[in-house]
Amino acid sequence: MNIAALIAQIKKKQSFLCVGLDTDLDKIPKHLLREEDPIFAFNKAIIDATQAYCVAYKPNIAFYEAYGLEGWKALEKTIGYLNTKYPEQFTIADAKRGDIGNTSTRYAKAFFETLNFDSITIAPYMGKDSVEPFLEFEDKHAILLALTSNKGAFDFQTKRLKNEELYKEVLATATTYKNAERLMFVVGATKANYLTDIRKIVPNSFLLVPGVGAQGGSLKEVCTYGMTDNVGLLVNSSRGIIYAENGNDFAQAAAAKAKALQTEMKAELKRANLV
Amino acid sequence: MNIAALIAQIKKKQSFLCVGLDTDLDKIPKHLLREEDPIFAFNKAIIDATQAYCVAYKPNIAFYEAYGLEGWKALEKTIGYLNTKYPEQFTIADAKRGDIGNTSTRYAKAFFETLNFDSITIAPYMGKDSVEPFLEFEDKHAILLALTSNKGAFDFQTKRLKNEELYKEVLATATTYKNAERLMFVVGATKANYLTDIRKIVPNSFLLVPGVGAQGGSLKEVCTYGMTDNVGLLVNSSRGIIYAENGNDFAQAAAAKAKALQTEMKAELKRANLV
Repeated sequence: MNIAALIAQIKKKQSFLCVGLDTDLDKIPKHLLREEDPIFAFNKAIIDATQAYCVAYKPNIAFYEAYGLEGWKALEKTIGYLNTKYPEQFTIADAKRGDIGNTSTRYAKAFFETLNFDSITIAPYMGKDSVEPFLEFEDKHAILLALTSNKGAFDFQTKRLKNEELYKEVLATATTYKNAERLMFVVGATKANYLTDIRKIVPNSFLLVPGVGAQGGSLKEVCTYGMTDNVGLLVNSSRGIIYAENGNDFAQAAAAKAKALQTEMKAELKRANLV
Repeated sequence: MNIAALIAQIKKKQSFLCVGLDTDLDKIPKHLLREEDPIFAFNKAIIDATQAYCVAYKPNIAFYEAYGLEGWKALEKTIGYLNTKYPEQFTIADAKRGDIGNTSTRYAKAFFETLNFDSITIAPYMGKDSVEPFLEFEDKHAILLALTSNKGAFDFQTKRLKNEELYKEVLATATTYKNAERLMFVVGATKANYLTDIRKIVPNSFLLVPGVGAQGGSLKEVCTYGMTDNVGLLVNSSRGIIYAENGNDFAQAAAAKAKALQTEMKAELKRANLV
């Protein structure tokens, strides 16, 4: 999917919500465990219930890998379902990959070609030749970890280099990579006060913002400091939506949570005169 | 596997060679493509042929993920074969994972429990709470990217923080993590001149050293500056061994390459009075 199509979807739906599909067999409603593929059954119900209110879905790959072959099958079915039934949805493989050149190419093929995701999250530590292979695919996007929403972010990301903090160096350097226009960046919502600085370095890039909801970030703050003329934001919520309830009406409960966030987003989009 | 068992294997075999199973259907001998599972058929032959000369195997997970379900099945069979037939081999999932706490726990379970690898490579960018979940498993090890062997390593890893280069900060900080004694570190062989500095920070940790052979690193230099009283080194070679030939005698050719490296290692171990 190209950026223009994503922006069009955001404006049409008045939402820049991404629903994280961190599907955990210990947390999904018990009655689904009787299904042949409980992970996919849960995802399908959540997707059908929430798709009207969001523009992106983000399975965190760890949750699927943890179940081995069965998990991988469920992931294939989930992305297949999204691609077939809701091709307008932007899909993000939250995989946090990154390796030397030829190996990154393998990961890129796995997620962009075999699974046909629109984008993948990437760790920057190994630098340019670990990121650029992901940028060689037209209409596909690499979402680089910049400033993450966890406590450990302070271990290195906010450490000051001679002149700058590391995450700023990551942002500035990444903008020099080949096909850098296909890059997006992960910026933790819980660090909205950093957004002003970040927008100085990447004024137009899309930011994938986790951490609203369960992790305590403020949507309003994110919008105030991070929104661009083309919105430039995808805000993710995983647990807050998909585990809103765990009885028979889990999907409707997920829809209600998604709708509530979308309503807040609509207000922010109006406040910024973007819809 | 605990470190003592690994060290005992190294001394017994007079080798600290790790064979990288970066199995690529475009590169394996053509006659294997007729097998039901060509990836596993290739790995099995390579393992049988090289196991006498090495102490570890390292499948790079990207190569398996690139083939989707079939690749994942081949990976399961490969680790199963190693665990059953050669339980004395140290197994490394070269996955370069890392995510926030509960998600890292998922990856840890995927690789340590579902697949039963002894260790996994981890990216440090997200800090403490992304690494510690991997250190909660007894006799399992996390191998942290410190100074990698690719050109992109100079993008960030060697950038100087106020006082130190980033990779040194990664090393020093990681030693403060809970269960840090289960950590190992990735250090690119092509940067053997950095080894003296690294050993000042982590004098005893095992280092996983890629980049000998195809990437141009020198085994002698690595040993001179990186070896400890307990060896403290696992040196990996992937393409240089597994793709030594691609005809019918590919496995014997791989064995010959592995044996040649083992012979060099034996000499280094003797030079250091460790065997």
